[in-house]
Amino acid sequence: MDFITILGLVAGVLTTIAFLPQMFQIWLTKSAKDVSFVMLIIFMSGLCLWLIYGIIIGALPIIMANGVTLFFNLIILWLKIKYR
Amino acid sequence: MDFITILGLVAGVLTTIAFLPQMFQIWLTKSAKDVSFVMLIIFMSGLCLWLIYGIIIGALPIIMANGVTLFFNLIILWLKIKYR
Repeated sequence: MDFITILGLVAGVLTTIAFLPQMFQIWLTKSAKDVSFVMLIIFMSGLCLWLIYGIIIGALPIIMANGVTLFFNLIILWLKIKYR
Repeated sequence: MDFITILGLVAGVLTTIAFLPQMFQIWLTKSAKDVSFVMLIIFMSGLCLWLIYGIIIGALPIIMANGVTLFFNLIILWLKIKYR
């Protein structure tokens, strides 16, 4: 695997796992009032389109990165609705 | 411009502008304690790598989308440090 591919993969992993600490912070503090509901809705709409885009062009890295990020943000949205 | 390109552009615009409502919410409420500091650091590290990736492969949409998202998240980080 070349340097560029590894760079892209590391970038994708970072922008995906970034949402794990947010998930755990809300889970632990049981508070999500400062997390914007509108941000979550717009961000997840964008991730859905990225996912469809990845499926259409058959790009597994785009499908994986956006699929997992969408999953993490679904949990954050659920926690946001649960704890406000 | 074909459908796939437009889909990708709309996806990119959505995952970029999503951070505007978060920015304004913190600005207006002067509270950011529920926004994870660790998330911001990891997410922005990933965005930096995406930016370098885009510059190396010469992909303007990747440079634009990640550049602007990084700029919005820099402001969110500044607000997070300011208001905790």
